Amino acid sequence: MGSFKGHALPGSFFFIMGLWWTTKSILKHLCKKHKRTCYVGSKALFHRMEIVEGICVIIMALTGMLGEQFISGGPAMILYKEGQWNELLEWHHFTMYFFFGLFGVANILCVTVSSLPSALPKLMFSNALFVEAFIFRNHTHGRETLDIFVHQVLVSVTFVTGLVAFLEFLIRNNVLLELLRSSLILLQGSWFWQIGFVLYPPSGGPSWDLIDHNNVMFLAICVCWHYAMAYIIIGVDYAFFTWLVKYRLKRLCPSEVGLLKNVEREQESEEEM
Amino acid sequence: MGSFKGHALPGSFFFIMGLWWTTKSILKHLCKKHKRTCYVGSKALFHRMEIVEGICVIIMALTGMLGEQFISGGPAMILYKEGQWNELLEWHHFTMYFFFGLFGVANILCVTVSSLPSALPKLMFSNALFVEAFIFRNHTHGRETLDIFVHQVLVSVTFVTGLVAFLEFLIRNNVLLELLRSSLILLQGSWFWQIGFVLYPPSGGPSWDLIDHNNVMFLAICVCWHYAMAYIIIGVDYAFFTWLVKYRLKRLCPSEVGLLKNVEREQESEEEM
Amino acid sequence: MGSFKGHALPGSFFFIMGLWWTTKSILKHLCKKHKRTCYVGSKALFHRMEIVEGICVIIMALTGMLGEQFISGGPAMILYKEGQWNELLEWHHFTMYFFFGLFGVANILCVTVSSLPSALPKLMFSNALFVEAFIFRNHTHGRETLDIFVHQVLVSVTFVTGLVAFLEFLIRNNVLLELLRSSLILLQGSWFWQIGFVLYPPSGGPSWDLIDHNNVMFLAICVCWHYAMAYIIIGVDYAFFTWLVKYRLKRLCPSEVGLLKNVEREQESEEEM
Amino acid sequence: MGSFKGHALPGSFFFIMGLWWTTKSILKHLCKKHKRTCYVGSKALFHRMEIVEGICVIIMALTGMLGEQFISGGPAMILYKEGQWNELLEWHHFTMYFFFGLFGVANILCVTVSSLPSALPKLMFSNALFVEAFIFRNHTHGRETLDIFVHQVLVSVTFVTGLVAFLEFLIRNNVLLELLRSSLILLQGSWFWQIGFVLYPPSGGPSWDLIDHNNVMFLAICVCWHYAMAYIIIGVDYAFFTWLVKYRLKRLCPSEVGLLKNVEREQESEEEM
Repeated sequence: MGSFKGHALPGSFFFIMGLWWTTKSILKHLCKKHKRTCYVGSKALFHRMEIVEGICVIIMALTGMLGEQFISGGPAMILYKEGQWNELLEWHHFTMYFFFGLFGVANILCVTVSSLPSALPKLMFSNALFVEAFIFRNHTHGRETLDIFVHQVLVSVTFVTGLVAFLEFLIRNNVLLELLRSSLILLQGSWFWQIGFVLYPPSGGPSWDLIDHNNVMFLAICVCWHYAMAYIIIGVDYAFFTWLVKYRLKRLCPSEVGLLKNVEREQESEEEM
Repeated sequence: MGSFKGHALPGSFFFIMGLWWTTKSILKHLCKKHKRTCYVGSKALFHRMEIVEGICVIIMALTGMLGEQFISGGPAMILYKEGQWNELLEWHHFTMYFFFGLFGVANILCVTVSSLPSALPKLMFSNALFVEAFIFRNHTHGRETLDIFVHQVLVSVTFVTGLVAFLEFLIRNNVLLELLRSSLILLQGSWFWQIGFVLYPPSGGPSWDLIDHNNVMFLAICVCWHYAMAYIIIGVDYAFFTWLVKYRLKRLCPSEVGLLKNVEREQESEEEM
Repeated sequence: MGSFKGHALPGSFFFIMGLWWTTKSILKHLCKKHKRTCYVGSKALFHRMEIVEGICVIIMALTGMLGEQFISGGPAMILYKEGQWNELLEWHHFTMYFFFGLFGVANILCVTVSSLPSALPKLMFSNALFVEAFIFRNHTHGRETLDIFVHQVLVSVTFVTGLVAFLEFLIRNNVLLELLRSSLILLQGSWFWQIGFVLYPPSGGPSWDLIDHNNVMFLAICVCWHYAMAYIIIGVDYAFFTWLVKYRLKRLCPSEVGLLKNVEREQESEEEM
Repeated sequence: MGSFKGHALPGSFFFIMGLWWTTKSILKHLCKKHKRTCYVGSKALFHRMEIVEGICVIIMALTGMLGEQFISGGPAMILYKEGQWNELLEWHHFTMYFFFGLFGVANILCVTVSSLPSALPKLMFSNALFVEAFIFRNHTHGRETLDIFVHQVLVSVTFVTGLVAFLEFLIRNNVLLELLRSSLILLQGSWFWQIGFVLYPPSGGPSWDLIDHNNVMFLAICVCWHYAMAYIIIGVDYAFFTWLVKYRLKRLCPSEVGLLKNVEREQESEEEM
C-alpha cells in the first residue's frame, strides 16, 4: 500500500460499495413507502442481489490480498525472512482485506443457508471494520506527524463506522442508520484517496511537509468537507430515485399517484405525532 | 472568532436555540398530558413551527459563515495564499457553521418532502455536533494550558450533546432526553460567553493568566455552575408553562380541571408501578 | 475534605444510600414476584418513602456543603481573596454536594408534582454522578502518583455508576440494573473510607508512601475486594429479605405458599426459555 | 502466572469455556428453529447443564486461585511480609480467578433459587471480565514495550468481551451476540497461550526481543489471525451440529424433513423482509 495506487484501490472499493449501499437503502425505503399500491421488485430479486454483492466483495478482497502480496515489494506469502519479519505493513493490509472477504462469504452463506441468522453479515461487517481500526492503530509507529494524523482520522472513521454497523445489527430496518453507515463508508473511500494524494502525490512532486502543523489543521477541515460531499452524493441519489420511483409509478398506475400522496402524508403525520 | 464578539455570537445562537427547544419540549409534553380534555395547537401549527425553526437556523449559520469569512481578518474565501494556508482557524469555524446550516436545511426538507424519514433532523443535528467536537479537538495546537482547557471542555460538552442527540434519534418522544439535550445546548451557549470573557475580556483589560493552574481548577467548577444555571432556567420555564397551560385550561373548560387532576394522578401512578 | 473526616463523611453517605437502595430494590422485586397472593405495601407508602429519601439526600448534601464551607480551613463562601482563588478544592466538593442536593429536590418534586415525568430523579442522579466524575478529574493537579491513582479510581467508579444510572433512566424496572448501581454506590462509599485511610491515616501515623508503585498495585486489587464485599452485602441483604417475605407470607396465608412456589417456578422457566 | 504454565492454564480454561458456550448457543438456536416438529432436549436437561457448567467454572476458579497461591513462588495467602507487599502479581491473578468463581456461584444459585432474576449470571460474567480488564490495566508497570503490548491487547479483548456480555444481559436470546461473546472468549484463550509463547518460550529458548517494535507490529496482526481462527472454529462447530440435528431429525421423523425445510425458508424470508 505504500504508494498512490495502494491507497486508490481500497479507496475506490469503499467508495463503490458506499454508493451501492446508499442506492440499495434508498430503493428499499422507497419501495416500502409505496408498498400499498405498486410493489416494485420481489424477494427472489433481493436474494440474488445479496449473492452478487457478496461475490463482488470477495473479488475486491481477493484483488486486495493478492495485490498486497505479489505486486512490487510485497512479501509474496513469506512471513519471516533472514532473521526478521518480512514486509509487515503489507501483511497488515492483507489481514484487513481478509476480514472483508469473510464478510462477503457471510453475505452469501446467509442467503443460501436457511438456518443462519439473517443479521450475520451486519455483525461480520462491523467486525471487519473493528479489525481494520485495530490494525491501523498499530500501523504508524515511528512516522511523521501528518502521516500519523491522516491514519488516526482513518482509525476514527473506521471505528465509528464499525459502531454504526453494530447498531444496525441490533436495530434492523432503520433507513437512516443504513444511510449514516453508507455516508461513513463514502467518507472512508474518499479519505483513502486523500491520503494517497497527501503522502504519494501522483504528479510525482514531493509529498506534503509532514511536520508542518498547518497541514494537520487543514486536513482536519478537509475530513469535514469530504463528509459534506458524502451527504451531497446521498442527497442527489435520494432525489434521483424518488423521482424515478414516482415516474415509474405514474406510468404504471397514473390515477393512483394523487391518492397515494394523501395517504402517505396522513400516515407520516400519524407516525410523527 | 479570535475576539470577544466571535465567541459571543455562537454563544448567543446556542443559548437562544436552547431556550427555544426547552420551551418546545415542555409545551409538547404538557399538551400530550392534557390531550384528553382540551387539545392546544394543531399539526399544521407544528409543521409551520419546524419550518420557521429551520429558517432561523439557516440564517444563524449564514451569519456565522459570512462573519467568519469577511469580517476584519477573515480569509475572504481564499484558502491558499502566498505559499501557505490562509487563516485556517476561520475556515474551521466556517465549516462548523456550515454543518449547522445543513441541519437547518434537513429540518425544512423533512417537513416539506413527505417521503423523508422524520428522524432525519435529529441525525443531522447530532452529526453537526460531532463535526464541531472533531474540529475543536484539532483547533488548539500550540496554545496555553488554560486556552486548551476551555476548548477541551467545549469539545466534551459538544460530544456529549452529540451523543444525547443521537440517542434521541434512536429513542423518540422522550421529553427528558429532549430537555437533557436542551440543557447541554444552554451550557454550550453560556460556555462560549465564558470563553470570550476569559480569553478576550471585553473590558479591554488583560486576559486571564493562561498558565496558572488555579484558573483551570476554578473554570472546572465554573462549568458545573453554568450547568446548574441551565437547570434553573429549564425549571423556571417548566413552572411558567405548567401554570400557563393550567390557567388557559381553567378559562376554557373550568369544570373539567378538577376532574382532570384526578385522572392524571391515577394514570401517572399506574405508569410508575 | 483534606482530612480523614472529610472523606469519611461522603463515604458514609454513599454507603448508607447504597444499603438503602439495595434494600428498596430487593423489596420491590420480591413484592412483584408475590403479587398474585399477598401484596405487601401500598402505593401511598412508596410515595411517602420517596419523599423521605429525598429529604435525607437534601440533608446529607446540606451537611456536606456547610461542612466544606465553614469547618476549619473552609472558604466560608468567599471565592476570591487577596488576588487569588480561595480554597478551590473545598469549592469543588461544595459543587459536588450541591448537585446531589438537586437530585434530592428532583426526588421530592417528582412525587408531589404530577405532571413531571417519573424518570426525572434517575436522570438527575446520573447527572450528579457525571458532574462528580468531571470535577474529580480536574482535582488532582500536581499531586503524587498514589494520590492521583486513588482519585482516578474514584473517577472511574463514579463515571461507570453514572452510566448505569443513565441506563436505568432508559430501561426502567430492571432489578439487576438497580442492584448493579447500588453495588457501585457501596463501592464508592467504602472507597472514600479507603482513601481517607491511605492519605490521612486516622491513627495519626504517617500516610502511605505516595510514590511507591507497589502501593498502587496493592490498591488496584483492593478496589476489587471492596467490590466483592459490596456483592456479599447485597447477597446477605437479598437472603434476609427473601426469608422475611416468605416468613410473613407463611404466617398470613400458610396454605398458599406451597402452591405459590410451583406457580413461580413454572412462570420463571417459561420466561427463561 | 509468571511462567508458561501460568498462562497456559487460564488460556485453556477460557478456550474450553469458549468451545462449550459456542456449542450450547448453536444447539439452543437449532432446537428453537426446529421446535415445531421434533423438540430435542427438555427444560430439566438445560437446568442440569447450567448447574454442571457452574460447578466446572468454580472448579476452574479454585484451581487457578490455589495454583497462584501455593505453586512455587506464590504468596501462600500472606499479603504483607517484611515491610512490603508480598507477591502482588499473584494476588492480582488470585483476585481475577475469584470473580470468575463468583460467576460460577451465580450460575448455580440462579437455577436453584427460583426468586433470583434469570439474567444474574450474565451480569456477574460481565463484571468478572471488567474486573479482569481493570486489574490487567494496572498490572504491567515498568515492563518492556512488547510485554505491555500483549497485556494491553488482553485488556482490550477482555473489556470488549465484558461489553458484549453486558449487552447480552440487556438483550436476551440473540444467538449472534452469544456467538460473538464466545468468539471473543476463544480469542482470549488462545491469546493467553500466545503470551506464554512470547514471554516464556516453553522450548527454554530466550524470550522474544521485548523492545523491538517489529514484534509489536507482528503481534498486532497475530491477534487478528487468532480471531479469524475463532471464527473458523465456530463455523465448523455450526456446520457439524446443523448436520447432526438434521440427521437425527431424518431418522426420527423422515417424512417431515422435506416439509420442514420449506416451512423454514418461508418463515425465514418473512422475517428478513
